[in-house]
Amino acid sequence: MEKPQPIILVTNDDGIYARGILSLIEVMKNFGKVVVVAPDKPQSGMGHAITVGRILRLQKMDSLYGVEAYACTGTPVDCVKIAIYHIMKQRPDLIVSGINHGANNSINVIYSGTMSAAVEGAVEDIPAIGFSLLDHSRDANFEASKKVVAEVVDNALRHGIKSHTCLNVNIPNVPFEELKGIRVCRQAHAFWDDAFERRTDPHGDDYFWMTGEFRNHDDGEDTDVWALENNYVSVVPVQYDMTAHHYLNELKDWKLEIPKTK
Amino acid sequence: MEKPQPIILVTNDDGIYARGILSLIEVMKNFGKVVVVAPDKPQSGMGHAITVGRILRLQKMDSLYGVEAYACTGTPVDCVKIAIYHIMKQRPDLIVSGINHGANNSINVIYSGTMSAAVEGAVEDIPAIGFSLLDHSRDANFEASKKVVAEVVDNALRHGIKSHTCLNVNIPNVPFEELKGIRVCRQAHAFWDDAFERRTDPHGDDYFWMTGEFRNHDDGEDTDVWALENNYVSVVPVQYDMTAHHYLNELKDWKLEIPKTK
Repeated sequence: MEKPQPIILVTNDDGIYARGILSLIEVMKNFGKVVVVAPDKPQSGMGHAITVGRILRLQKMDSLYGVEAYACTGTPVDCVKIAIYHIMKQRPDLIVSGINHGANNSINVIYSGTMSAAVEGAVEDIPAIGFSLLDHSRDANFEASKKVVAEVVDNALRHGIKSHTCLNVNIPNVPFEELKGIRVCRQAHAFWDDAFERRTDPHGDDYFWMTGEFRNHDDGEDTDVWALENNYVSVVPVQYDMTAHHYLNELKDWKLEIPKTK
Repeated sequence: MEKPQPIILVTNDDGIYARGILSLIEVMKNFGKVVVVAPDKPQSGMGHAITVGRILRLQKMDSLYGVEAYACTGTPVDCVKIAIYHIMKQRPDLIVSGINHGANNSINVIYSGTMSAAVEGAVEDIPAIGFSLLDHSRDANFEASKKVVAEVVDNALRHGIKSHTCLNVNIPNVPFEELKGIRVCRQAHAFWDDAFERRTDPHGDDYFWMTGEFRNHDDGEDTDVWALENNYVSVVPVQYDMTAHHYLNELKDWKLEIPKTK
């Protein structure tokens, strides 16, 4: 008896019309039955946001990519939730998110809608991978990335991904020939040094654009930042337990108590 | 010479008009100089979202609470960023977020705008605490919570909070007399079993409401879920390194390689 095809949910945060998701769908069609549930508009920087107190809508658009596909008015995490709990008759064997137009390495994992969709997969204990190319432009070239996606997905389906984790794959923006390899890394310790540019609108009111410089304070050669700067694809395994376990005992020594006075 | 007053940034995710932030401001005025930068509307469930590709606006509203205060059109994380990088002349000594109307224990830490504001403080290496009361209603009673806030903040200012961590404080919805104590906990392993309720609008188009049941699969008496169910305040130390360190070596054994074929 033939092994049944894996069911693969594809999503992203750049929206269902982005080139990155088109490239991802093209690759994933070789691995199984693809269902697309993606935001109907760009949702970059949405982090792990979900839609609370507002409605969601779905639009079926199978003709867009020749597979079962839906545009959703919600966030990337909403897309994963409505796919799993409403649209799909059986839970997916794999969730892939991307290919993001732009980096999601290091601290960006918490701001990234692409990665939050993958993390939601981990929360649901479904194998999940987020892919990002270090090219922010709308017409980024995903040809090299597609080969990387195929390699990682092939391995993920063969080995399985550890329960309640997902993978964060970032791809340097260089021609295929210049990719030096694929490195398993930890997330570099970095942050954004933000700035707010004040402007005045035609009505005389102020508004602000947030801008920022990425600041890396982590020289480790085992980090994703190092790998990407040296033309390696970075693969960071991601978990979602936010507990600072190393700090529990010290905090207990505070001996916090409900104040006696009423 | 007198010790200078701590500078305290107050934010939340329920919006600047919420009762929870009013209660928090009342307590924090006893501890230092308070600056409020909070969303101009409810931003529950926004997770670590930031505003990308859209503008932000600020409205000064010092008369609202008798302290320097701004309503911001962005997310809770935007509020922290614009406070630190634009509004405040010196970096705050402490960031407090809340008091949230509703629970932010366990997995909710990643969906919560309240906690994401505190986590952004940790990323910026500023001591930060998120407070949440397990009462979702708009007219929740924060009197018992205020005493808990004072106890935790007093300790945090005396002991300091470990670099690059923050605290997630959840308070059971019971009268002050029934609070049994304050427990330092780990985040329970739980998730949301979601459902999508389909309705039809007056124009004949479908829309969906996301609903969900919180499912806890973790019986540990060292968890926040256990503490709250037993009328203890839970304090979970939170970090933001998402790397699944325990999985690095196994992943390396996959021996991922750039495919040979061009």
